[in-house]
Amino acid sequence: MNNFEFCSSTKIIFGKGGQSKIGELVKEFSSNILFHYGGGSIKKSGLYDEVVKSLKEAGIKYTELGGVQPNPRLSLAREGVKIVKEKGIDFILAVGGGSVIDSSKAIAAGAKYEGDVWDFYIGKAKIQEALPLATILTIPAAGSESSPNTVLTNDENLLKLGTASPLVRPKFSILNPEFCFTLPPEQRANGICDMMAHIFERYFTHTKNSEVADKLCEGVLKAIINNAPKVMKKADDYDAWAEIMWAGSLAHNGLLGMGRQEDWGSHRSAHPLSAVYGIAHGASLAIVFPAWMKYVYKLNIGIFAQYAVSVWGLSDPIRDEESLAVKGIEVTEKFFKSLGLPTRLYEAGVKESDFEDLSKKATALGDIGFFKKLSAKDVIEIYKIANK
Amino acid sequence: MNNFEFCSSTKIIFGKGGQSKIGELVKEFSSNILFHYGGGSIKKSGLYDEVVKSLKEAGIKYTELGGVQPNPRLSLAREGVKIVKEKGIDFILAVGGGSVIDSSKAIAAGAKYEGDVWDFYIGKAKIQEALPLATILTIPAAGSESSPNTVLTNDENLLKLGTASPLVRPKFSILNPEFCFTLPPEQRANGICDMMAHIFERYFTHTKNSEVADKLCEGVLKAIINNAPKVMKKADDYDAWAEIMWAGSLAHNGLLGMGRQEDWGSHRSAHPLSAVYGIAHGASLAIVFPAWMKYVYKLNIGIFAQYAVSVWGLSDPIRDEESLAVKGIEVTEKFFKSLGLPTRLYEAGVKESDFEDLSKKATALGDIGFFKKLSAKDVIEIYKIANK
Repeated sequence: MNNFEFCSSTKIIFGKGGQSKIGELVKEFSSNILFHYGGGSIKKSGLYDEVVKSLKEAGIKYTELGGVQPNPRLSLAREGVKIVKEKGIDFILAVGGGSVIDSSKAIAAGAKYEGDVWDFYIGKAKIQEALPLATILTIPAAGSESSPNTVLTNDENLLKLGTASPLVRPKFSILNPEFCFTLPPEQRANGICDMMAHIFERYFTHTKNSEVADKLCEGVLKAIINNAPKVMKKADDYDAWAEIMWAGSLAHNGLLGMGRQEDWGSHRSAHPLSAVYGIAHGASLAIVFPAWMKYVYKLNIGIFAQYAVSVWGLSDPIRDEESLAVKGIEVTEKFFKSLGLPTRLYEAGVKESDFEDLSKKATALGDIGFFKKLSAKDVIEIYKIANK
Repeated sequence: MNNFEFCSSTKIIFGKGGQSKIGELVKEFSSNILFHYGGGSIKKSGLYDEVVKSLKEAGIKYTELGGVQPNPRLSLAREGVKIVKEKGIDFILAVGGGSVIDSSKAIAAGAKYEGDVWDFYIGKAKIQEALPLATILTIPAAGSESSPNTVLTNDENLLKLGTASPLVRPKFSILNPEFCFTLPPEQRANGICDMMAHIFERYFTHTKNSEVADKLCEGVLKAIINNAPKVMKKADDYDAWAEIMWAGSLAHNGLLGMGRQEDWGSHRSAHPLSAVYGIAHGASLAIVFPAWMKYVYKLNIGIFAQYAVSVWGLSDPIRDEESLAVKGIEVTEKFFKSLGLPTRLYEAGVKESDFEDLSKKATALGDIGFFKKLSAKDVIEIYKIANK
């Protein structure tokens, strides 16, 4: 096991009715906040009204900034930073999914920085200070509600890049599985794939002797796999959503990777597909991850065979590790298909003639991943596998 | 799944060499601390010298209070509170196992309270404020290094009682598996049983639909069970200790019980055995837990059968849930025996004539447990099973 430091400081408030406490909870931090949200689905669902009522009752002044898109844009985050600075706002409340939360993290960090917030994403600056923020999560997927991570897309050059700092971990996050009842099937499937991918990035490693993390990853994956078909079938299955929502948070709060080298090559290979083609993040991972697995599994057949056995319950009568490994990848791909996700680039309209440009975007800051260090050339090979 | 709130705010610094940073880490909180430890094993191991050196280099003034015994005593905690108040100390560093850490939590809370610290343990007062504290863990067992819990024994009436508050969660804890190399076999076995018991208290529940917690509990239990024989055999097996140490912390930071009703009847039935007979906490649980399982399993055979299958890999060709449940309990008891632990009260010198008094101590504050609410009479029945 590798040395590590771990602190997941976000307070999770889980279950029915949590949103009614929002005013009271925010009050402990601030009375002048930015209320950040997305395209308006929270207005349709009534959550917007509940939040506004609770904030007003607690006497909290709020400035609204809606309009966060999937694959959140740098331009809106810059606008948020400007508003926050001008109005002396000292707390950000993100109500929405991972895009809204990631955007709010950018604003939180940008508000305490003199330069351009994009500097954090291109590695030009490190987050040294940030406004406190909190979330009400409406889409279980990105895990951003309890992670130190944020990913933004630069509208100008279509680079989609991430950064991380414990300073942008939300102070608290309200997770009410009832919010998931109105999600359309694609968003359910995308979210499920996203959280599974967060675990895959931690699970497939060359680090030896990290069994606790193995078992945590396998357990959370199994809970997702068991409950995913239920929420796909019945949009208002509270019990199944509760498992999925809690699993999605644990998948990305850092715990499941402690003591081992994580990878993240697949995420980085998938990002340009979203930035350039607007493919949903979860769908881009359903396409790229199986292809990545096929490209790299021979470097550590044991961990892929273990995955097949421990997560999918596969067995091989002749105990051939490689055939198990291959079966595990096949079953993963089938599972994504069963959720209605694309698993090939052509299904998502990506052109082979763009592979080179996409691979350059994926590796814009250098080679990516650790399980196998991936150059732009490797990324093209993965895209090719994902296009067969 | 039940509604829940969860925040494990302790920063875990895991791996080799962590202790060398102690001065620098403490410095962020205080320059006038209480350095609390046990019977002197840290002097033999050299850890004491390392800590003193690091504290001195960081310019931190420290007052020593050693002498914490297993099953830590109220009298010493009271002494600690007095010292801290007199010297204006504002931070406590606990270096040792769960007893030292529990004692330091008592002092941290008592220092900010005008009444007697025992009030918190008998339910007369609630912890409203506490000094910050941190730990260097030397015995993986109690999980106190990242839990909000503390258990003390009153020297006068031999009541062993616990209390909890997020305010006494350590700010940070240093976990270096190398510290485990000098533990004698009994302490290794006691610690392993203690952490397994922390998971059992969370695993055996009537709460339905809490699969993520099921899987986390099963996974961490399996990692403990796989690695326990290794550390029993080879005291300096770093890799195996790393799994055990990390598992012990996760077993009791709260995560594994989120969303379900926990029990704690076995812990409370076991406490008087330690307080009156001085039986080590882990050993007392090795005696009581299998007996509790036998006494209650019929109330939810399903969860006990699931335990047998998912944790121990047992199978039953005729798919008889009850026989699986019984086998799972048998295997648990055998496992404790294989570690050299007692599993019967008579092995630990407990007299049947004391059962009534012990059961009254166990239920001094009312009935205990939730899986089955246990009266003093029930506790006697459990002791009888544990004496067969």
